[in-house]
Order: sequence, then C-alpha cells, then structure tokens
Amino acid sequence: MTETQAFLAYKAYRMRRWSIIMCAQAQSGHTTSCLSAADLVSVLFFYAMHYDPDNIHNPDNDRFILSKGHASALLYAAWAELGKITEAELLTYRQYGSVLEGHPMRRCPYVQAATGSLGIGLSIGLGHALNAHMDERTYYTYVLLGDGELAEGSIWEAAQLGSYYKLNNIIGIVDCNRLGQTGETMVGHHPDIYAQRFAAFGWHTFIIDGHNIQEIMTSLDTARTITDKPIMIIANTIKGYGVEFAADKNNYHGKPLEKEAALQQLAEKFPTQATDAGTNYPLEKPRYNCYTQSLGASGEEERIEGPERAEKVINSKSPTPIAYPPKLERRRIQGTAYALGEQISTRKAFGQALAALGAIYPSVISLDAEVSNSTYAEIFEQKYPNRFIECFIAEQNMVGMGIGLDQCNKKPFISTFGTFMTRAHDQIRMAAIGQSALKLVGSHAGVSIGEDGPSQMALEDIALMSALPNSIVLYPCDAISIHALVEQMIGYTQGISYLRTTRAATPVIYATDEHFPIGGCKILRQSDRDVACVIAAGITIFESLNAYETLKKEGIAVAIIDLYCVKPVDTQAILQVARASHNRIITVEDHYIQGGVGAAVCSALINTGVQITNLAITALPQSGKPIALLNAYGISAQHIINAVKHVLD
Amino acid sequence: MTETQAFLAYKAYRMRRWSIIMCAQAQSGHTTSCLSAADLVSVLFFYAMHYDPDNIHNPDNDRFILSKGHASALLYAAWAELGKITEAELLTYRQYGSVLEGHPMRRCPYVQAATGSLGIGLSIGLGHALNAHMDERTYYTYVLLGDGELAEGSIWEAAQLGSYYKLNNIIGIVDCNRLGQTGETMVGHHPDIYAQRFAAFGWHTFIIDGHNIQEIMTSLDTARTITDKPIMIIANTIKGYGVEFAADKNNYHGKPLEKEAALQQLAEKFPTQATDAGTNYPLEKPRYNCYTQSLGASGEEERIEGPERAEKVINSKSPTPIAYPPKLERRRIQGTAYALGEQISTRKAFGQALAALGAIYPSVISLDAEVSNSTYAEIFEQKYPNRFIECFIAEQNMVGMGIGLDQCNKKPFISTFGTFMTRAHDQIRMAAIGQSALKLVGSHAGVSIGEDGPSQMALEDIALMSALPNSIVLYPCDAISIHALVEQMIGYTQGISYLRTTRAATPVIYATDEHFPIGGCKILRQSDRDVACVIAAGITIFESLNAYETLKKEGIAVAIIDLYCVKPVDTQAILQVARASHNRIITVEDHYIQGGVGAAVCSALINTGVQITNLAITALPQSGKPIALLNAYGISAQHIINAVKHVLD
Repeated sequence: MTETQAFLAYKAYRMRRWSIIMCAQAQSGHTTSCLSAADLVSVLFFYAMHYDPDNIHNPDNDRFILSKGHASALLYAAWAELGKITEAELLTYRQYGSVLEGHPMRRCPYVQAATGSLGIGLSIGLGHALNAHMDERTYYTYVLLGDGELAEGSIWEAAQLGSYYKLNNIIGIVDCNRLGQTGETMVGHHPDIYAQRFAAFGWHTFIIDGHNIQEIMTSLDTARTITDKPIMIIANTIKGYGVEFAADKNNYHGKPLEKEAALQQLAEKFPTQATDAGTNYPLEKPRYNCYTQSLGASGEEERIEGPERAEKVINSKSPTPIAYPPKLERRRIQGTAYALGEQISTRKAFGQALAALGAIYPSVISLDAEVSNSTYAEIFEQKYPNRFIECFIAEQNMVGMGIGLDQCNKKPFISTFGTFMTRAHDQIRMAAIGQSALKLVGSHAGVSIGEDGPSQMALEDIALMSALPNSIVLYPCDAISIHALVEQMIGYTQGISYLRTTRAATPVIYATDEHFPIGGCKILRQSDRDVACVIAAGITIFESLNAYETLKKEGIAVAIIDLYCVKPVDTQAILQVARASHNRIITVEDHYIQGGVGAAVCSALINTGVQITNLAITALPQSGKPIALLNAYGISAQHIINAVKHVLD
Repeated sequence: MTETQAFLAYKAYRMRRWSIIMCAQAQSGHTTSCLSAADLVSVLFFYAMHYDPDNIHNPDNDRFILSKGHASALLYAAWAELGKITEAELLTYRQYGSVLEGHPMRRCPYVQAATGSLGIGLSIGLGHALNAHMDERTYYTYVLLGDGELAEGSIWEAAQLGSYYKLNNIIGIVDCNRLGQTGETMVGHHPDIYAQRFAAFGWHTFIIDGHNIQEIMTSLDTARTITDKPIMIIANTIKGYGVEFAADKNNYHGKPLEKEAALQQLAEKFPTQATDAGTNYPLEKPRYNCYTQSLGASGEEERIEGPERAEKVINSKSPTPIAYPPKLERRRIQGTAYALGEQISTRKAFGQALAALGAIYPSVISLDAEVSNSTYAEIFEQKYPNRFIECFIAEQNMVGMGIGLDQCNKKPFISTFGTFMTRAHDQIRMAAIGQSALKLVGSHAGVSIGEDGPSQMALEDIALMSALPNSIVLYPCDAISIHALVEQMIGYTQGISYLRTTRAATPVIYATDEHFPIGGCKILRQSDRDVACVIAAGITIFESLNAYETLKKEGIAVAIIDLYCVKPVDTQAILQVARASHNRIITVEDHYIQGGVGAAVCSALINTGVQITNLAITALPQSGKPIALLNAYGISAQHIINAVKHVLD
C-alpha cells in the first residue's frame, strides 16, 4: 500500500468511526449507508477533487452533490476531517438548532445541495455541469448516488440529458451496496446491469470495487480523461462495510448501531488505521488537492490528467462575485411598449419580457420542457440561444437542473404548462427546502385553455405553489404587469417564485409606468357607491370588467381588484376596499376552489366580518371552447353579475 | 398485398381521413400525431388485439392504452370504424359536452385510460398486466407511446418494474416519428437507441417500419411468442404521414391541417384505399379478432400464437362482475381490538387495518415504494404476499400502476411517506381527472417525525390532495379511527381518497364501536362553559388534549374537535360547536399554514362571523426531537394554551 493509499484508507476509517458515533449519539441516522460509501468519499475528498476548503465559494472548486442524502453523517465527517467542523459540532448531529441536520440542508455551509428525497442529485449536478460549460469553467461535478435511487425515473431523465448535451464534466458514482430500506434492490449486486443501462443512455461507465482504494483512485483519474460524454462509476460496495454484524445484512437501514460493539468491530477490520487514529494523524497532511496546494507536488504518484485540467489549476480564477443586486425598482425595458387595449396573451408577454430582461441581466437563463412555442420561452431562445436550455419532456430533471444553476448564481426561469409543473413537485418542494430562488413559469392556466381538456389545464397550481415555504405566487392579467413582475421575480431571492400565465390573448389594461410590487394589488374600479368588491386575477379580470359594465348600466357599482400577487396577499388594501364596499367580496378565479385566490382571500380576511363569495372551478372540467367553459364552470361575467345581485338580496 | 393487408391499409386510410376532418372541424387537435400512428392502430385494432367491441367490459379483452393521448382523434376514429361511434359524433370532437374530448377522458366508454400528460400510459398498462397475472387472465395489454414522451423518467420506472416482474403480457409500441412539439426529439430517427435502452432495462425489443403493414403484423405476432419478458416495439414512422406538405416537417404539431388540401394529398398517397372509401367498404367485414368471431376462421393467413393464447380464446371467460358493494357501514374486523390508552402509531394501525380488511375484501391490494417497514404496509404484505406489490423507489410508476389496477376493479392502497407522494403528483392529478378511486396513504406527517428533517416531512400534502376534484382527505389520530376510515376508503369510489398517518406512537382514544363517517368530525370535549373551540387532527389532538387539561386547572373550559376528515369538512358540526364556544375557533395542525386544516376551516366558516386563529407551520423546519419541533414551530400544547388566552384578552 502506498502512502497515499494508506492515508486515504485512514481517512475512510475515521469517517466510518464518526458515522457510527454520530448516529449512536443522535439515536437515529443511516449508519450502514455511510459505511458503504466511506472509501468513495475519502478518495473524492482527499485525492480526486480539486477545491479549496478554505474558500468554499470559489467558483472553480469541484462540486460534490450527495444525492444519497441519508448518508449525511459521512459528509459532515469529511468536513470534520478537513478541519472545518469540530468534533463537538459533530456530536450535535440531528439536534434542533444544529446545522448538521438529518439530511443535508443548506443551513450548513458545506452542503452544496439539499437532498433527502432520492433521485434528485444527478439533476442538480447536471445544473452545475451546464453552468461550467456556459461559463467556460473547468471544474468537475461529482455526484454520489445510492443504488436504490436508480429506480427513480428522474435519474434516467438526467442520464438522457447529460449525454445529449455531452456533459463530460460530470462524474457520477453509484454506491452499489445492494440493499435498500426493506430489502434488496431490483438489481442487487449486479453493477453490470446498471453499467449497461447508463451506457445505453450514452454515458461512459466503469465498474469498480468500491472498497479498493487504488481502484477508486484509478477510475477517477481515468474518468477525467474522458472528453466526449458524462461518466458513471458503478462501485460495488457492502452496506455496513467494516462492522461485521451489520455488513450486507438486511434490517440495518436507517438505524444507529450499538456504538461500542460497532467501533470494536471497525477497529478489528482496520487495525492499522485504528492504531494510527490514536496517534493523532495530522489533519494538515496535504494529500487532498486544492488550490492552496500545487497539484501533485506532494503526491508520490503520477496523476493522470487531461490537458484542460492542468490548465485549470494554473489559471485558477479567484471567486468572482456575480454582479447581482436584488433590485426591486423597475428597469426601463427596451422595445416592449404595449398600447392600451392591445391584444396579447400573458404567456407571449412573458416571453418578450424575459428576452428584454435577458439584455439587462446576463445571469438570466431559460429552461423549457419542449413547449417553448407554447410558453413563449422561444422568444428568449431566439435572442439568447446560448442561455436557453431545451430540457425536453422531462420536467423533474429540468427543475433539478434549475436548482443546480441557481446555486451557481444563475437566474433560471423554468417554464412549461402550469399543470405539468406538478410532474416535478417533489423537486420544487426540495428546491423550496433548499432555499433555491427558482423562477417557475406555468402557462395554460385554467379551463380557459379550452379544447385540449382537463389534462392540460393548470387548476391546482396556485394551491401547490402557495403551500411551499417562502414562495410567492404571481398571476398578472396583462403584458405590462407581466413585464414588471418578471423583473420582480429576478429580484426575489428568498425562495421559489411562481408566475401563472394565460393562453388566450387579452387586452393590455395598464400604462407602461405602472408599478407592481410583490405583495400588492391594483384597484381597477372604485367609486363611493360600491355595493361589493370583485377580486379577480388573470383571465377573470376581463370577465369582471365586463360584469362591471353591465352592472353599471343597471345602476349597480362595484369595486374591482386585480390580485396579481396571490401570495403574499395585500390584506390591507383588500380590506380597505371591502370596507368601502359594504364589506362584501366576490372572488372569481380560473382555478379549483381549494387553495386558490378565493382561499387566500378567505384566510387573509378571517375575523374581519367581511362577507365573501368564492367563484371557482368546483367540478372536473371538460373540453370545449374557452367561453363555453368559463360559462359552464361558473366564472364568466354573467356569474359575477349573478353573484353580486345575490349578495345584495 | 394480401386481402388482410389491404383491409388494414384501408382502415388506416379511413382513420387518417377522419383525423384530418375531426381536427379541421374542431379547429384544433394533433392531426400529424394521428397520421404517424394510424397504421399501428389499424393493425392493433383490426388484426392483433383480441377483444369484443360489443362487450367492452369483458375482463378478458385485450387492453389498449393510448399513452400519447394527444392522438385522441385516431382512437375515436378506430371506434368509429368498429361501428361504435357515429360519424355525426366524430364531428363533435372537442366540443363542450361531447365525450370525444381533446385528450382521452373516461367519460367516453371506449377510453381505457385518461391520458394527456405524457409518460404515464406505460405504468397504467403495467397495472393491467399485473392484474392479469394476479387473476390468471391471459389478455394482453398494448400501450401506444410517442417517442417524445420517452424523455419522461416515469417511462423508465415502468420499464424497470415491468422486467423485474417479468410481465410478458405487455406489449408497448413506440410511434417513433422523430418530431416533438418544438423540434426533433433527443434521439430523432434512431430507433436502435431506444431499442438498446429498453433492452438494457430488460425488455425484448423489435425495430420495425411503422408504415409497413406486414412488418407491424409480424412483429405483433412474434411479440406474443415471447414469454420471459415484456416487449417493446420501436416503430419508425413519419409524423404527418400521408399528407405531403406536413410529413416529417416541423411546426405542424398540435395543429389542424387545411382540410381540402390535406384530404387531396391523402387520397393521392393512398389511391386504392381512397377509391374504396367511396364504395362504402363494409364496416362489418370481420377482420379483427374478437370473441364474437372464432380466431383465425376468417383469416387467410396462419397466425403465430403462443400455446397460452389458443387456450385463452377457448377458455375465454365471460365478464365476472367483481363482488364489491360500496359498503359504508362498519364491518367487524377480527383480532384488531385496541385498548383505550394503548400506544400505537396511526401508520402501524393502518398496516393492521389493511391486513384485517384484506380478509374481507379480496380486491384490496397494497403497493408500496420500498418503505413498507415505515408505512407498515408490510403487515399486509406478510399476510397477503401475492396481493402486495413492491414498487421500489419509483413513486410515479407506482401511482400509474394503481390507476391501471383500479380500472381492473382492484382496490389499490398506495403507500409511501406523505411527502414523497409529491413525486407522483402529476399521476395523482391524472388519476383524479380519470376518476380513479385510488387510495393513497401518506405516512410521516409533519414536523413531528423529528430528526430526519424537512426533506422527509409531509407538510404540504393536505393542500395538494385537497385541491384535486372529488378527493377526500382523512387525517385520523388513533388506531380505532384509522381502522374505520381505511374501510371507508374502500367504499369511496368517486375519486381519490388520501389518508395521512403519523410516525409517533400515540394513545388510542376511541372505543371500538365508534363510527367515523366521511365528512364527519368528533367532538372530544365540550361543556356549557366553553370559551373557545380547538380544532385539531392527528398528532395535534394530543397537544390539544394536554392543553385542555392545563386550561381546565386554570378554570378555562374549551371544546375540542377531532377533524379526522379534512375534506369534506363537517361545516355544520363545527359551526354548532363554535356557536356554543363564544364563536371562537383555534385550529392547530402539523402542516404548512396554506391549504391545511386551518384553511379548510376558514373556507368553511366564511360569512359566519366566527373568529378563527390558525396555528400551523409557517417556517422552513429543521431536524430535532419531535417535541422540540412541535414547540419550535408553534403547535404544541403551550401554544394552544397561549392562543386560547390570547383570544380571551
């Protein structure tokens, strides 16, 4: 065994030891899932990866995504071995307040992706890899996957796209330890099957013994010489490796091991490393390659490196903070003036707004799921083809890549039909938990899309997006407000922002200089004789305005509010108008009645005594002409008129 | 060309013609996607499939799932050619009220699966195929897929599971027409790449010319001789085939074609068929094989058939209606008595209830995503291993298979962590649209799961499930109510039912003979001195009961309601208790504040003047001990006490 190998084996021993101790201390956690992957993580962190532990924000650092997030203890142990987390801190694992959470969360600065829902890490990694290509950086992205999570379809979405875009800078490693939570995976200890699958999806594959330090080193060295495709290393491992009573045995998933017995068996398995452990093997020993050490100077072995790699280290850039002030004021957008009354759909205006903003914000990019001529992301694509990523019909991977790109300080606008966003809801949920500032744009809202029928209608999207922590939900009705709010989304960095757009062309109703703050609303009609206030958003604004005119002819005055921001709701403004309208509100929306505009208003106005009527979709809709459907499901002008008259009775 | 081939080519011509006419009439629709698949559908419907068009509910009929649902016109045209849909009906395509919707909906009796969100059909097909294995039926399930939708990960989830379970009775056909909505697919006209991928996933594959009738016939004949694995036929086709100006051209997706020009080019392309068309080629001509004709008797060619196949036709069973009365009354469940105060988690009680009900209802089956020792579906599995389907970590395919099984009159209970249900939300949405009576069971609700952290906490599930049309949402707090409600779920056939379970063991609070109707609630504490009413569900019931005791000692009486059914809400009962509690309600729940118990109560009690306080999760939670988290996020007994005192101020 060379000195390097001995060092890496020692680090693996140390991390295994910590994994056992941490989970035992927490009385929970996934010990055996850490034990299988420790050798892989040791070679990654202390041999293969090029990064500066002292400057974790260096944009040229290699990236590490722990897709099998339940092995969080191993990740924290690695950073402890790098001297960045103290032993005392390790013992706070899984305690309330500790940044060392049960699954990696970005409250911990050393966590590059919030994981814990399986099958997402490879997509996040692709986002980092795409970013490197876009920015011409030469870092590699390493993703450590479990074998169980290869059952998730999102993995194969990522596999397809990774090879399609020839992302030669992503290296996945599958910790193929055979056992899932309840028993053996579908494939078991047959890494060749996984290798065939990834090869069929266009990846270069290796099969290695995941406990043979030299094999791991060689595979990672060789991986970096592959230049035409992404790389997947299938590492055959033993779950619980090092602790005989748990090794390769079922029923040890997600459990702490009896500490003393486990540590004793570990020491028996690795006697040399265990002895060294007592002698305080220096943490400083520079075996890992990072920007603070020159490559290879301290290594006793020749490293296999591609020419780009050498160049990279020489030309290593220092961190360049992305110029991005979260501006909330409105920028002047060139060439996008709309005339009052001009007919244009909000989806088309979104595409124009994104293209216009693309000129101002170089970090804005667009991802679309093969419907860019429906969402109108194609307008951005035509102007900035290099900042548009066609994600094909694979929404999960699209959102996962968005998470990675957001972490690279890009501003990803992710568009598809609003209802197909549901396909990626777990990724969106994890993005929210990971505090990603994704900008999601869902088109084809509601029954007003017409003939294509319910499978294409977004009718639950406001409910889904509103339930996410720190999310904002925007539903503007015209081109001017779309432009203003797309820019607001760029400035919103505290969580997910969701923009809902409409298929049909509708008239422009705002002047160019109008402001649309997040959390605001617009009072479109108001008089001192209002008998009720109608709150609408999107397509129903126009039904409300029609109702207003008809009612006016009958001598009935109502206020109209455009609730372009559904979350957070402008409670104060709404209440003020309601108070001036005999405390009567009628909400009308093209969304299921649960969790939409009406529900938001109900929750906002509890305990105010305001009388509220909600008009929304309450039945499973059918195909038909848009106007027929607005009528059939009770959200057309006539229904608003009826509702107003009803509350007057 | 043999007579059969000529007949099949003629049927394909007819269906192409109808597809052009229907889309032109509707001024919308996906003409070119129908044109590419017409030959495949002709050979399927009029040669390969064994089914009785006059008895569509015959359980031995071969199944046909149109995964590429946008080709709906083609499906309707096929049934018109079978004499089941009139020409006048075809012309109602996509009109409001017509059962011939833009994407196939089950309002049309000839639609076997609601589709339109891509990548779901193969999973639905697997459900039918599994059902055949379970019930020892010999029908085949045919699934027609688009090539664009192969980008969806759910396809590969289905591919893995199909080969794992050796489902030799499913035959997929990919209409590989190269073009998606905006341009070429990732793979284009390289069927060999798809074939490699499916082969790597364990499928037997064929590559054929999808416009060569004889090749299609031969491949389908040969497919039925494969007995060890599922089969995927990759058919190279031309999008828009038959209409020169649109054939293989971009920008014709999802559009009607100019009718006269298209029909003229079609007639020029198929002069023989076009001539026949004018001569009213008899619809009755018995070329398709179904139970009303004896196999092969009228065919001039030798059919290649497996031995099972011949046996099947001979032994063809007539439809056996599944004995399933939607009983809403409570059955006596053997051996599941719980003592008051006994500590048991609702997730474990769910497993026990399902196992107990399995004895009474043979159609109950269990699907779980490799967490059956967490959801406790394993209790059912141990008792009924043949009715348990391990779906591994692939939630989308699990739910998709559930849709198929539901269509076969099985009662699928689908369980995983509640938050991982979000992974399949598009499938759940499509199940709701398809009026499937899926029974979804989400465990590990809320922050009370503790140390595993936010990625594993279901905190948005009530919002998501409530927004679905015709759904019910159940959130019982103890073993007795779990048992009662699991049985209620079996009886609920109008849509999705969702059951939310808790990780922690909690005491049994109900007597065995208690009733729990859907849409009801339980008043746990009430007096004539109540100053407020606390509404809770699940884990917060116990916090509420603790608060009750503390408040009681201080001389403050409150009512407590167990809102075990969150949708639909028992508005009347709640209002009655609120009226008797000084019109004050405090809701407390382990769910995000949007779309949960509190929001449901707010919406139910609008315009009643009741004062409502919502206690719920409003921040992104962290890891920690359960009680620490209930405290940290404001839903513990102390917070309830504080809220009661606050409203009294």
